[in-house]
Amino acid sequence: MSDDRLIYLPLGGAGEIGMNCYVYGYGPEGRERLIVVDLGVTFPDMETTPGVDLIVPDVSWLAERADRIEAIFITHAHEDHVGALGHLWDRLRAPVYCRRFTATIAKMKMTDQGHPAEAVNVVGPLPDVVEAGPFRVQFAPVSHSIPESSALIIDTPAGRIVHSGDFKLDPDPVVGEAYDPEASADVAEAGVKVLVCDSTNVFNTHAGRSESSIGPAIRELVESSTGMFVATTFASNIARLKTLAEAGRAAGRSVCLLGRAMKRMVTAAEEAGVLTDFPPIVPPEMAADIPRQHLMLIVTGSQGERRAATAQLSRGKYLGLEMKEGDTFLFSSKTIPGNERGVIRIMNALSEMGVNLVDDQGGRYHVSGHANRPDLERVHAAMKPSILIPMHGEHRHLREHSRIAAAKGIASDVVTNGMMVDLTGDAPEVVEFIETGRTYLDGTAQVGAFDGVIRDRIRMAMNGLVLVTLIVDEDGIPLGEPWAECLGLPLKGRNGRALLGVIEADLAEFLDRADRHTLADDDKLDEGIRRVVRQVSMEEVGKKPEVTVVVSRLGEDD
Amino acid sequence: MSDDRLIYLPLGGAGEIGMNCYVYGYGPEGRERLIVVDLGVTFPDMETTPGVDLIVPDVSWLAERADRIEAIFITHAHEDHVGALGHLWDRLRAPVYCRRFTATIAKMKMTDQGHPAEAVNVVGPLPDVVEAGPFRVQFAPVSHSIPESSALIIDTPAGRIVHSGDFKLDPDPVVGEAYDPEASADVAEAGVKVLVCDSTNVFNTHAGRSESSIGPAIRELVESSTGMFVATTFASNIARLKTLAEAGRAAGRSVCLLGRAMKRMVTAAEEAGVLTDFPPIVPPEMAADIPRQHLMLIVTGSQGERRAATAQLSRGKYLGLEMKEGDTFLFSSKTIPGNERGVIRIMNALSEMGVNLVDDQGGRYHVSGHANRPDLERVHAAMKPSILIPMHGEHRHLREHSRIAAAKGIASDVVTNGMMVDLTGDAPEVVEFIETGRTYLDGTAQVGAFDGVIRDRIRMAMNGLVLVTLIVDEDGIPLGEPWAECLGLPLKGRNGRALLGVIEADLAEFLDRADRHTLADDDKLDEGIRRVVRQVSMEEVGKKPEVTVVVSRLGEDD
Repeated sequence: MSDDRLIYLPLGGAGEIGMNCYVYGYGPEGRERLIVVDLGVTFPDMETTPGVDLIVPDVSWLAERADRIEAIFITHAHEDHVGALGHLWDRLRAPVYCRRFTATIAKMKMTDQGHPAEAVNVVGPLPDVVEAGPFRVQFAPVSHSIPESSALIIDTPAGRIVHSGDFKLDPDPVVGEAYDPEASADVAEAGVKVLVCDSTNVFNTHAGRSESSIGPAIRELVESSTGMFVATTFASNIARLKTLAEAGRAAGRSVCLLGRAMKRMVTAAEEAGVLTDFPPIVPPEMAADIPRQHLMLIVTGSQGERRAATAQLSRGKYLGLEMKEGDTFLFSSKTIPGNERGVIRIMNALSEMGVNLVDDQGGRYHVSGHANRPDLERVHAAMKPSILIPMHGEHRHLREHSRIAAAKGIASDVVTNGMMVDLTGDAPEVVEFIETGRTYLDGTAQVGAFDGVIRDRIRMAMNGLVLVTLIVDEDGIPLGEPWAECLGLPLKGRNGRALLGVIEADLAEFLDRADRHTLADDDKLDEGIRRVVRQVSMEEVGKKPEVTVVVSRLGEDD
Repeated sequence: MSDDRLIYLPLGGAGEIGMNCYVYGYGPEGRERLIVVDLGVTFPDMETTPGVDLIVPDVSWLAERADRIEAIFITHAHEDHVGALGHLWDRLRAPVYCRRFTATIAKMKMTDQGHPAEAVNVVGPLPDVVEAGPFRVQFAPVSHSIPESSALIIDTPAGRIVHSGDFKLDPDPVVGEAYDPEASADVAEAGVKVLVCDSTNVFNTHAGRSESSIGPAIRELVESSTGMFVATTFASNIARLKTLAEAGRAAGRSVCLLGRAMKRMVTAAEEAGVLTDFPPIVPPEMAADIPRQHLMLIVTGSQGERRAATAQLSRGKYLGLEMKEGDTFLFSSKTIPGNERGVIRIMNALSEMGVNLVDDQGGRYHVSGHANRPDLERVHAAMKPSILIPMHGEHRHLREHSRIAAAKGIASDVVTNGMMVDLTGDAPEVVEFIETGRTYLDGTAQVGAFDGVIRDRIRMAMNGLVLVTLIVDEDGIPLGEPWAECLGLPLKGRNGRALLGVIEADLAEFLDRADRHTLADDDKLDEGIRRVVRQVSMEEVGKKPEVTVVVSRLGEDD
């Protein structure tokens, strides 16, 4: 079968952290059978995507080849790996495979969007195998900051691929499977052709630390605190929730979970059997009656999300609970780049209430879920792949990871979103560039990144908007004065004159002087009005606004 | 004079990092003679202040009392201390005092806005004294990340105030005055009533490091680099520029400065005599002809500013210079919270060009200009103030700094923007809350933070905008169909229908059914149209847009 080939195509997550979506294919060129690994989201920001709710990969390439998709595999239940499943599944319609805990979340993502939960199949860890066309896929447990995270062992006629998923090497992860060098050796024994590997922490040169290493410090902190103790972390970090809750119990505190995601995750973990001995929790309505020195809240919103419990508590009373002077608030988390301002705003609001703030203190109260450089090198050495493809990283992470591999004699290349590489040979070979990108979920609509919709929003926000309406009568003569409205523009220009007044006066003058030819030509009129508005705005307030002109001509369409 | 009092009133910088502006007053209540310390700016962001150019303190309180202002003192030439001088001076019109280098920058700020440079007076360091009403003010040299930074020694009839300005304790600052414990002892000898003190780095528990400590690492890095070497840092960090340039020269490289601010700062420092032996520099047009391994660029834009040299280089050719595979780019700087995304974007663009990126590596290639907690404690001990007022910090910094002082028995309180405190007695006493805040410079206009202008921009950016125009004839009957325009909204709704079409159809139907009463009442009509638009948008795309309605009634004003 010399014309079959093994291809790899990232559609998200390669050149960015977030929105993971990777495609593998095997078969004759253009007729490869495909599997998809992960369907994640990334989050919008005001600077580039104002008003957008969520960002998912543009899977048009996949959707056009939906008949060739054998299966969708989800490595773990983080939003950047499973969050887009419900939004994109109906365009791909392939069976979904994941482990039990992940499936609980994946099914919610499906039903939330009206898709059948039954499309999600629960798979056990290896040696369980999913046969998907030419692929045989096993879930190999790895430690990460969520239960049941898995690497995928993907056997193909061209050899074995290890797709690492998100992972760290944790011998004692508190919840879930510990790092097991022997299991790792077993996977490697058959020979690994390609290691496709997490690159998030490649710039961290220290060996990663175990989740269990922060327990003592957290227990000490809770014990030494006097008022109410509140801690926030990612809701999906079940191990952390357990560490926090146990520290609370050890200090004689009742534990209360605040935030929907928090309760949903704990329930899901208990249902999936990955969390068996979580301390008893009290509901918020009971918590309010517990003396504050005997209470611990574990809450959502570590990234400063406006509607989450942390932000609510920073604004005042929330579900009957309120922070006060002498209480302690622990951010058992790291702020994701871009979220700093929001988190700092909350910290200062809590500071104003007299709350003692404790952040991760450089790792004392938080550890990362990703492998650092020395850990990555251990994995390279254990797997001995012929080829290493770095994934799950910005360009600089992928490049550094590739450099490290290449220095050890492993064939490696930086492969970013949209690059299809052929992995059949001894080294990755770029064979095609696929048009891909981001799709914005905006309300209930899906908007393309280049549709111009978001560009218009950004322009209105940066420049303000002037809206001009003008009625022209049957004889082509303006009826009355033009009418303008300013949105998002300074009210007063030079010498305190009203901007709107100056604009309308200059427009009236322009129309007075306009010849019949201009008045008769919608484009000319539009252009002239636009020019006047921009010029007078520039003179008065030093800004060139967006301008929308509506000319109504009487006797035309009525 | 028992009814004279000494007051302190921060108008900016107390409860935030940036936009520094502090007022001191002495005299009978309500008739105190005033001095202003610093007039700084802070920078807008897309999330809260889209389209805004610059943010300055709201100095209305001061402007209303301009006749009582004796003088304005500028501690140093950083934007967050001097940047608002030109924008606010005409409302205050008091003489400005600062040291020579600061004056060079301050005069530019004045002339840029058409104000007289002569209002800026150059003062030497202590023992030179400025007499300003009841105040005698001396500039005490301190080390910081810009030349000639100064603490102010403010003698008043009620005792001595030490206003620290921004500072660190650096025995070897490369450029400018070293930290001198003896000079510090001299200041303290007369007795310090109040220490008003920088709080920026209060959470850093390590003793601060000297600017000179990073020289060897930078030299090594430059020496070991093969391609072109580019470094960015704050243009005003003259000591860093010198360290970088000398490292370049030592490695046999020609040094070229890119970015207007860079050249302006070096010229200003040379003119002021604080920089005497900067290596020779080559202009950009010559640099392009120098073999890249013999070239070093020192460039603006360490915070990811879009128009600065760093961003330009990350996008391609700039002034004939272009980065290539094997070049090195050093960020000899720290990213200010909120700027992460922009900086990361640039790093990845450079990574795509094959450039080796080097960041500060946890302090190896950058040191802060602010005193850390142990340094602050040394200053507390040296100054032995009766009262400590923390400034230059967010609420959490001020609170922590106050806590540290109080623990040592120093009277202290958290005083934030707008709080006037009486410092006459043994402890600070809050006497009044002043209405203050932020003024936005928007183009050439000044906009109040609560004018609604920026709120409108944010709403348009978040929700999109629908504009509806309708003509009603002399009889109160709609003339033709209503006309709608959508800006920043998804083009298609449910089932692929055009959103605009559905809106117009539903509006036509609404008007068909509207009674004469509604049609005759602008408010009712407006409200009805708005409701229809929001409802149909919600149904079609799941968003409630902003709506602007223009109803033109024929035969009314023509």
